[in-house]
Amino acid sequence: MRIVDLIIKKREGFELNDQEIEFIIQKYVSGEIKDYQMSSFLTTIMFKGMTPKEIGKFTLEMMKSGRIIDLKSIKGIKVDKHSTGGVGDKTTLVVGPIIAALDVPVAKMSGRGLGHTGGTIDKLESIPGFSVALTEQEFIDQVNKIKIAVIGQTDDLVPADKKLYALRDVTGNVSSIPLIASSIMSKKLATGSDAILLDVKCGNGAFMTNVEEARKLASQMITIGKELNRDVRVEITNMSRPMGKSIGNKNEVLEAIRTLKGQGTSDFNELCYSACITILKQAKVTNDEKEAKKMIDEVIKSGKALDKFYEFIETQGGDVQKLKAKDFWNPKYKLDVLAENDGFMEISSALSFGIAASKLGAGRITKEDNIDFEAGIEINKKTNDEVKKGDLLFTLYSSKPIDMQIANELKDSYQINKQKVENKVILDRME
Amino acid sequence: MRIVDLIIKKREGFELNDQEIEFIIQKYVSGEIKDYQMSSFLTTIMFKGMTPKEIGKFTLEMMKSGRIIDLKSIKGIKVDKHSTGGVGDKTTLVVGPIIAALDVPVAKMSGRGLGHTGGTIDKLESIPGFSVALTEQEFIDQVNKIKIAVIGQTDDLVPADKKLYALRDVTGNVSSIPLIASSIMSKKLATGSDAILLDVKCGNGAFMTNVEEARKLASQMITIGKELNRDVRVEITNMSRPMGKSIGNKNEVLEAIRTLKGQGTSDFNELCYSACITILKQAKVTNDEKEAKKMIDEVIKSGKALDKFYEFIETQGGDVQKLKAKDFWNPKYKLDVLAENDGFMEISSALSFGIAASKLGAGRITKEDNIDFEAGIEINKKTNDEVKKGDLLFTLYSSKPIDMQIANELKDSYQINKQKVENKVILDRME
Repeated sequence: MRIVDLIIKKREGFELNDQEIEFIIQKYVSGEIKDYQMSSFLTTIMFKGMTPKEIGKFTLEMMKSGRIIDLKSIKGIKVDKHSTGGVGDKTTLVVGPIIAALDVPVAKMSGRGLGHTGGTIDKLESIPGFSVALTEQEFIDQVNKIKIAVIGQTDDLVPADKKLYALRDVTGNVSSIPLIASSIMSKKLATGSDAILLDVKCGNGAFMTNVEEARKLASQMITIGKELNRDVRVEITNMSRPMGKSIGNKNEVLEAIRTLKGQGTSDFNELCYSACITILKQAKVTNDEKEAKKMIDEVIKSGKALDKFYEFIETQGGDVQKLKAKDFWNPKYKLDVLAENDGFMEISSALSFGIAASKLGAGRITKEDNIDFEAGIEINKKTNDEVKKGDLLFTLYSSKPIDMQIANELKDSYQINKQKVENKVILDRME
Repeated sequence: MRIVDLIIKKREGFELNDQEIEFIIQKYVSGEIKDYQMSSFLTTIMFKGMTPKEIGKFTLEMMKSGRIIDLKSIKGIKVDKHSTGGVGDKTTLVVGPIIAALDVPVAKMSGRGLGHTGGTIDKLESIPGFSVALTEQEFIDQVNKIKIAVIGQTDDLVPADKKLYALRDVTGNVSSIPLIASSIMSKKLATGSDAILLDVKCGNGAFMTNVEEARKLASQMITIGKELNRDVRVEITNMSRPMGKSIGNKNEVLEAIRTLKGQGTSDFNELCYSACITILKQAKVTNDEKEAKKMIDEVIKSGKALDKFYEFIETQGGDVQKLKAKDFWNPKYKLDVLAENDGFMEISSALSFGIAASKLGAGRITKEDNIDFEAGIEINKKTNDEVKKGDLLFTLYSSKPIDMQIANELKDSYQINKQKVENKVILDRME
């Protein structure tokens, strides 16, 4: 078998068989297929797509390229929730404790943020002492004991994806839907969950900018799930506006705590409830949405969800006293942005707010950058909130003096309208 | 400028501008653009093609990547004839001397053969003493003095094409018409000719296997010529059958001599006359085809063309006495293949005959192989010749004992039919 012939076969519209796909992934990881050959293959996929059978096998082979986590010794149905990444997306910090408080195991492997999107692990590490450096056994034991644990993605998980992603990035081959789908799914599958809920973010603050593309990606990931016998469900959610009020790290942890207390913003509440309800269905706790909602309400009102959050933080070394202290989040510099006229607020670019937060220090531009956990943005007026001239719209925070330029650059990313605008949270659900 | 953005731009259907194409070629040759990036770009071209403006600039930048031969000090209009490579194609050995005998300068840079197609230089080097190792000045002086000289392609000519071709070969990116067109044309343009006649071979013995594809290639090369102000004309010629009677090296030289004496086969005569007439038009000697034909007839009948051939061979060190001797071609082994029934001969695969000749020793499988100048095939019965059972169809020759397998493998590549088949030489002319 020669990669050249497989590139040509795919270009000419033929379906690659299982052995051929196995050959491509295995020989690429072993170095026999060269980067310059793989990049031609990837570009061919950009143009020709992949059939369901191809994409299923491709994902499986990617998964098999590295370590596979075995979660069988965790009792119950393990549901993994994965977000494709957005601005202000602290969903895991809320959904995880609620689900765990309802006795469903949450064994979560998370990533760090890059670019304008934040990462769950970065947010958790903003809590002094918190660590994701658990061994696989410690991880499993913790889930069995307190129903929730979060670890970082290890380097030996899906090496094929690491190698492929780095190549796609420098060869213009990122935006292929089957390649994105198999990249996400191979990692989810390697972490051993029984069912997967995917939150496909859609809008200018997300990788998918239009809902049709998001639907295509969703459908391909569901197809992979079917090929590989996993229950995959997808929510396509709006990422044209930041989620909730807080963008950053420490301030997002605080917003998660507020939400677990029942004081979240309506958009973020809606997102968290929707995810929890779907997970309770996937975990076969209940198929009745009203009942699911009641169960969630109960763990929030009783404080069980919040207690679970603190228990989880403490178990992984986090200093809950410091987290509860008034000065947990205490940025040195801030800059208020006020309304220049009356009307209804509209944030039209989550992307710009994500980039601004990143420039303030809340995100990484390159993988080696350090994060300023104090930095971020607090939104006082959300989309469709009524504002009067002079009202506080949002505040920028940082440990360094704040460049006025960052606020100026946001000017085109929000406006004050005469009327309210459409503002859905959940754009579609697919399974 | 970043190559990633240019790959994406091209994929999305935009035309690349002059600076962008300059950037791609220059940075690829300098090594700043990596092979894995270039291969994605090439695959993108496979799918999206190139606009006339892009392909003109691409060709020009390829040409400018290395040495450019300056033929200004050769008097007259320099017409370069180039064949895309076929089986039994000794056209240059006949057309060159005829044109030179008519006082039109022939400054020819030729290549060596690879795979099943033979190279002009290999055929010439089968004559003892003949050498193509002339300096540029010696080359020019020889053309001015005797009107004809042939040199080998130097390594510093179009290095971008060398690097690109090697990459295309291992990444399945060979068969893109704009890439083939710019590869051929960049080399032709770098050798400084004023006008170019391209013989695009078409059929199973050639790179282009169908006439529609050949027309597309022709049209792109003519377009490049127009973009860069050169008179480019194309003949699309039949390469489903070997040209003439001889396939090999020494035996092809002998067939060229027979043809220069007026004793060529009708197909090869037609090809040579057609090429000579077009070149005489391009060189502005005459636009009248009848007059051109008469001029060619005259130099053949008078022996001037053959004399020119011998003068050319002698000037470049060839031993004309040895060439004229009876034992010039004297292969040690031969194997006759006879007709098994009556009818009309049809050779249906020039490719198979080319491969067989190559296996006998007449060609190279890899660039490092040595050629057996004695090896080859002599066709006794050409397509549409009447044959009786037991007649000699063709003979295989070699300096090594001949494996019967080679003859057996040819069995599906010729047949004896009840009727004659269509057998055109010139399939189309374009300019």
